[in-house]
Amino acid sequence: MNDILPALADMLEQRRSADAATSYTAKLLQGDTEKILKKIIEEAGEVLMAAKDGDREHLVYETADLWFHSMILLAQQGIRVENVLAELARRQGVSGLAEKAARQPS
Amino acid sequence: MNDILPALADMLEQRRSADAATSYTAKLLQGDTEKILKKIIEEAGEVLMAAKDGDREHLVYETADLWFHSMILLAQQGIRVENVLAELARRQGVSGLAEKAARQPS
Amino acid sequence: MNDILPALADMLEQRRSADAATSYTAKLLQGDTEKILKKIIEEAGEVLMAAKDGDREHLVYETADLWFHSMILLAQQGIRVENVLAELARRQGVSGLAEKAARQPS
Amino acid sequence: MNDILPALADMLEQRRSADAATSYTAKLLQGDTEKILKKIIEEAGEVLMAAKDGDREHLVYETADLWFHSMILLAQQGIRVENVLAELARRQGVSGLAEKAARQPS
Repeated sequence: MNDILPALADMLEQRRSADAATSYTAKLLQGDTEKILKKIIEEAGEVLMAAKDGDREHLVYETADLWFHSMILLAQQGIRVENVLAELARRQGVSGLAEKAARQPS
Repeated sequence: MNDILPALADMLEQRRSADAATSYTAKLLQGDTEKILKKIIEEAGEVLMAAKDGDREHLVYETADLWFHSMILLAQQGIRVENVLAELARRQGVSGLAEKAARQPS
Repeated sequence: MNDILPALADMLEQRRSADAATSYTAKLLQGDTEKILKKIIEEAGEVLMAAKDGDREHLVYETADLWFHSMILLAQQGIRVENVLAELARRQGVSGLAEKAARQPS
Repeated sequence: MNDILPALADMLEQRRSADAATSYTAKLLQGDTEKILKKIIEEAGEVLMAAKDGDREHLVYETADLWFHSMILLAQQGIRVENVLAELARRQGVSGLAEKAARQPS
């Protein structure tokens, strides 16, 4: 389970040159950034709705969808997911009082 | 880098019982679900703005923020991040024509 | 210009029984609430992007789109737009220090 | 009820020069655009949650909140709400088959 996100990032990079007619991901990667951004905000909305429904299985699915589209954005921008993981690791080491300050400049 | 997300999930579970007065995360975890959901949609909006700004460092930061708050939601709901990673792994194995269908019932 | 919103609400009510195959609005009104909600969050994202682009004409268009889909939601829920206007009128009369408190319980 | 939105727009323009320490609206109008945009996406999320809850009174309130913050954005950008109303009026006159096409280039 440990290297799923980097492996998924590799797959997305490869899919960049796939046929947009047959691959949903290739179509997004080869299109404009706004289409990907619209999907991200829409998926965030679906996370909200799944959580409000109290449907845990659906919530897992929609969270995966939100992260998947975030990774499409990263791939399109040429950013490796490892950078996001490193930022998350930084927070993991942060605790208590220091935590809120460390979240700046969010 | 490989076990960052499960380790972060462990940290969030522990923080559940931390002092809400000193921990931002504890405060969210101990509050109502709507506060977490509002943060998720707000963070998704910040991802959009960072991407529009073309600020790659900021985009990494905001994507981490979006994922971090997704993980707070999972922790609050008692859902392990491994379930999301498994769903993402499933997509990684899917390719070409089958991909769009497999995304159902998004 | 004064009665545009109530007139638009009337039009939406009528369109409720229109042919969903030929009317975008009828299709949304006759479908499930989640489809309308997904459009609202997507349109809010488009307002963000238009504002970030500094494209004023596009911002007017996307704000209209956001409000239009809000009105489709109201119509589907059997709520008159006059209720929203009355709530906005209430805020108009509120000023200075009292304003923030009056916005509760947002 | 008919001139609420233009009157509200006038009030927002006046509040531009109010004391940001005592007026929530003045504070937003005098701050950066991103703060207003974050409020808009957050309010859109609250509309989703109120609709999912099936709480009609809350839905009216949150829709008003979403429109109110849209109007703060318009005021900050020096755009009159009449432009948005004119765009909505245009749609009101559009019907049936022509409707979808007219919504371009959404």
